[in-house]
Amino acid sequence: MTITITAFERSPDGGKGLARDTRVRWALEEAGLPYRVRLVSFRAMKEPAHLALHPFGQIPTYEEGDLALFETGSIVLHIAERHAGLLPDDANARARAITWMFAALNTVEPPILELTTARLLEGDKPWYEERLPLVEDRVRNRLDQLSGRLGDADWLDGAFSAGDLMMVSVLLRLRSSGILDEYPNLAAYVARGEVRPAYKRAFDAQLAVYTGKPPTG
Amino acid sequence: MTITITAFERSPDGGKGLARDTRVRWALEEAGLPYRVRLVSFRAMKEPAHLALHPFGQIPTYEEGDLALFETGSIVLHIAERHAGLLPDDANARARAITWMFAALNTVEPPILELTTARLLEGDKPWYEERLPLVEDRVRNRLDQLSGRLGDADWLDGAFSAGDLMMVSVLLRLRSSGILDEYPNLAAYVARGEVRPAYKRAFDAQLAVYTGKPPTG
Repeated sequence: MTITITAFERSPDGGKGLARDTRVRWALEEAGLPYRVRLVSFRAMKEPAHLALHPFGQIPTYEEGDLALFETGSIVLHIAERHAGLLPDDANARARAITWMFAALNTVEPPILELTTARLLEGDKPWYEERLPLVEDRVRNRLDQLSGRLGDADWLDGAFSAGDLMMVSVLLRLRSSGILDEYPNLAAYVARGEVRPAYKRAFDAQLAVYTGKPPTG
Repeated sequence: MTITITAFERSPDGGKGLARDTRVRWALEEAGLPYRVRLVSFRAMKEPAHLALHPFGQIPTYEEGDLALFETGSIVLHIAERHAGLLPDDANARARAITWMFAALNTVEPPILELTTARLLEGDKPWYEERLPLVEDRVRNRLDQLSGRLGDADWLDGAFSAGDLMMVSVLLRLRSSGILDEYPNLAAYVARGEVRPAYKRAFDAQLAVYTGKPPTG
């Protein structure tokens, strides 16, 4: 059955791969699944046709036959549970990998999103400069703990999993802040994710939307 | 196999049921599963024994035989996937219910957490009064969309599911702000969750930890 996802017609990050469709593309590439992309404009995202697919008017969405899903975490989990390559076979290891997906989205990403929000929506406010270090320290607090747990390991729990896919994707949002570089083991972890062929294909595909040039690889 | 979860020895909300162990207790009660609770102090949460279970030094955790999990979303999903009462049987409906779990945790809760953070950690800052309406409007933006999708339905997608359990739990955090009451259908939705016998048992059990009195029901 054909899989169709949605992505920004024009990504606000200029093709840096930070829009959430990249996470879904990456999961589809790891699983070796072909997919189509329907691009949506900012205006179309808030119109009834798209809101019927995604009640919060965002991307990505996922359509496969009769099934329509939204929420990146849910889409990646759906792919991971049904195809090899993203979750271990052992039931307990599988539950732990899913735990890392939730940890990435619910424990590590929220302070990172707060940092992004401060920059994008409050950068012109009189409190911005004084408040920024508080927000950055909330991010560091999580990274201290994550860095401590990862240690010298390649991935969070055994082999690469959907948990790593999500955690690497979340940490990538931090690169421009410089905070990631304060944690050499986390920076190396992110780099290990970025060199995976499936990530590269996903990144190139989202960049091609922005540049209008199809991937050359 | 015995299920053991962790909870605050002394919940910072004074037994209002907002600590995340309530969500896990609720899921266990919906599934009809007995469980034990190990209480942990704020100090013990940051010590190696607890960090081995929960790398971010939080509660709840979940232990069942050889399996140890953290992250409320992952724990609730683990319970929901293995026991009746929290996910529909139809595969597509099941994937949609899981989507609502992620929507609760990743789309609706983050701005609510930002509001909580503003109150708890920045209430004494010079920018607090001026910034608060911005943060509240981010919450309203999500609730507008959620309220529009829920409409007159009892639950988000058919029968009550783990998606509703999580969404109601997330919205409960808003009650003290008064914002929830601006959306009568969402306030009624939360009230429908609260009168479920399983929720009441979960609430009473967490309150009993705080008051030191076992539930009377």
